Amino acid sequence: MVRGTICRLLVRDVRFPTSLGGHGSDAMHTDPDYSAAYVVLETDAEDGLKGYGLTFTLGKGTEVVVCAVNALAHHVLNKDLRDIVGDFRGFYRQLTSDGQLRWIGPEKGVVHLATAALLNAVWDLWAKQEGKPLWKLLVDMDPRELLSCIDFRYITDVLTEEEAYEILQKGQVGKKEREGQMLMHGYPAYTTSCAWLGYSDDTLKQLCTEALKDGWTRFKVKVGADLQDDIRRCRLIRNMIGPEKTLMMDANQRWDVPEAVEWMSKLAEFKPLWIEEPTSPDDILGHAAISEALVPLGIGIATGEQCHNRVIFKQLLQAKALQFLQIDSCRLGSVNENLSVLLMAKKFEIPVCPHAGGVGLCELVQHLIMFDFISISASLENRMLVIQQK
Amino acid sequence: MVRGTICRLLVRDVRFPTSLGGHGSDAMHTDPDYSAAYVVLETDAEDGLKGYGLTFTLGKGTEVVVCAVNALAHHVLNKDLRDIVGDFRGFYRQLTSDGQLRWIGPEKGVVHLATAALLNAVWDLWAKQEGKPLWKLLVDMDPRELLSCIDFRYITDVLTEEEAYEILQKGQVGKKEREGQMLMHGYPAYTTSCAWLGYSDDTLKQLCTEALKDGWTRFKVKVGADLQDDIRRCRLIRNMIGPEKTLMMDANQRWDVPEAVEWMSKLAEFKPLWIEEPTSPDDILGHAAISEALVPLGIGIATGEQCHNRVIFKQLLQAKALQFLQIDSCRLGSVNENLSVLLMAKKFEIPVCPHAGGVGLCELVQHLIMFDFISISASLENRMLVIQQK
Repeated sequence: MVRGTICRLLVRDVRFPTSLGGHGSDAMHTDPDYSAAYVVLETDAEDGLKGYGLTFTLGKGTEVVVCAVNALAHHVLNKDLRDIVGDFRGFYRQLTSDGQLRWIGPEKGVVHLATAALLNAVWDLWAKQEGKPLWKLLVDMDPRELLSCIDFRYITDVLTEEEAYEILQKGQVGKKEREGQMLMHGYPAYTTSCAWLGYSDDTLKQLCTEALKDGWTRFKVKVGADLQDDIRRCRLIRNMIGPEKTLMMDANQRWDVPEAVEWMSKLAEFKPLWIEEPTSPDDILGHAAISEALVPLGIGIATGEQCHNRVIFKQLLQAKALQFLQIDSCRLGSVNENLSVLLMAKKFEIPVCPHAGGVGLCELVQHLIMFDFISISASLENRMLVIQQK
Repeated sequence: MVRGTICRLLVRDVRFPTSLGGHGSDAMHTDPDYSAAYVVLETDAEDGLKGYGLTFTLGKGTEVVVCAVNALAHHVLNKDLRDIVGDFRGFYRQLTSDGQLRWIGPEKGVVHLATAALLNAVWDLWAKQEGKPLWKLLVDMDPRELLSCIDFRYITDVLTEEEAYEILQKGQVGKKEREGQMLMHGYPAYTTSCAWLGYSDDTLKQLCTEALKDGWTRFKVKVGADLQDDIRRCRLIRNMIGPEKTLMMDANQRWDVPEAVEWMSKLAEFKPLWIEEPTSPDDILGHAAISEALVPLGIGIATGEQCHNRVIFKQLLQAKALQFLQIDSCRLGSVNENLSVLLMAKKFEIPVCPHAGGVGLCELVQHLIMFDFISISASLENRMLVIQQK
């Protein structure tokens, strides 16, 4: 079914002035302008189908990612789509291990965000040519074909290809029923739109009231800038939603390790399910220490939106450093790398709750998490995706 | 002494076609064109002094780093140099924690390489205005002033500012003598120019003969592409240099964790002092596992040239994952971040052997390692810098 040679690559710098209203603001990103480096791939096939992909950015710097997409373009242009998806692992490796470009990564930061935008567009094109949404393309793929999209470099000490195959084989059992369940009921979700750090208490109350009216049962609040503010805001929300509903907290990397433990001990009374990004996304051992201190208080650790590749996730799992794993459809190297992380999470039995929001992230990651439920995790326990309204 | 407002920032994309001769080739970077994003800062002071800084690159992608330098330029332009160096920690934080730009890092990859180039230029300008080489500027600085250049965010669980102060205070003892020793004898060095992976055995023999004639006693060989080739090349070099001289090996991230252990067990007979970059620079726990397996065979682990920030080095030290720590003057956020890593290495008593070669790295890092000896480590044991001839 796959067809055509990629003959055109367009990349656009798209920005929205979200900082004007404080939308998306947190302890570290005080004035984000939600933006994206947006890629369009065209082929010479007669179907006229195009592949659309993006990576999310916060405004400034989008032009740097656009520049990196152009630097990678020669790997994609004039390639036959059959050759790409026929050896997707090799193609992934080609993009991420370019002998000159890997120096400015490797597999991290700008060049990896650009890789994600490009590969997201390739996956979109593939799914369109198959006439399926991406999640369904993945669900219908044979385990061996799925594995052929994954680069296992640097993760074989934790997950070999054979182990991954066994996980996918087990996932075949009950797949049809779970697909039906998804189509009927959808995936559970939480809202993060009520409690951005830049919002006043009045705005917060109003949005929370609306969200309760709309039937939301899970809420996330930004913390980490000022402890007294956090206590007031968390009390306000916990009082509004009552003791039964779920509250999560998100510090967006604001703290050092000892500070994270101390601060969260003071917010424990508001019974958060998790504290998200308590410290640097690079700090595996730091997350492990925080986890060891907070899990006995009933607080799990969530992180992932700025974990830059599968090697970081591998170690977070090895070190028991998180209780909720948050993949990102644009930070990791597209579907290919996310597949490897979903499989590792399954091996360690850690629930995946994707990061989303921003520009396009909700739309992208729903495919990955539906695939995760239908073909890998087979469970909704402690799992939810995030919806950002507005 | 410091003076002037930064009124002009030039950034150039400088490339050398080193791939034509296979210079610099290794198991992962098979065709590097040694390059640099080169920054020049001018002030409105009447002295006419300029600050020169760079970050090293491998050819393609240099334009992406140049683009990132331009994205950061507004933090530097029209700033008074007195304000910058008067609160260098704050200035560092401003560059690395820009609320929009940090999303495409943070403190890693392209945006961090660009930060390094910019800050290297600021340090160069400062040293020139003081009329001293950079190492001497650092050596003459008061411990409190040195500390005021360091961002301790994310490392206080391992090194507090007070601990760092104590280390620097201890380093004051015998400083004058060590400075004299450096001026008289210089810093010990090894050569990495004999055994690039792209060189034939004949070229290797010829260059090794010349290096022995020039008095070199420490040699590094690239390994990791093909085991039989490695055995032949390592035997050839070990036979030429004899059993007493020092041999190091460098795999440039070629292996997975189990592969690294297996491969190096087969090269142990050639008595390497260290294996450099056995696996992904992000894999702290992987390096710890390799270290645990190879140290009993007499082989140390060295890494750092692609470790992207102080948080990674912190964990490598915490996890006992390396025996030789290789800072890079352009991968970390310039002198500021390197200071924090030198201090952590001292706390853990791990010798620093800087990464260099490439474009400008030898010239830059000599200042840091001389400062390390004179003011921090006070030891040359197991320490050496690298010289790339040609």
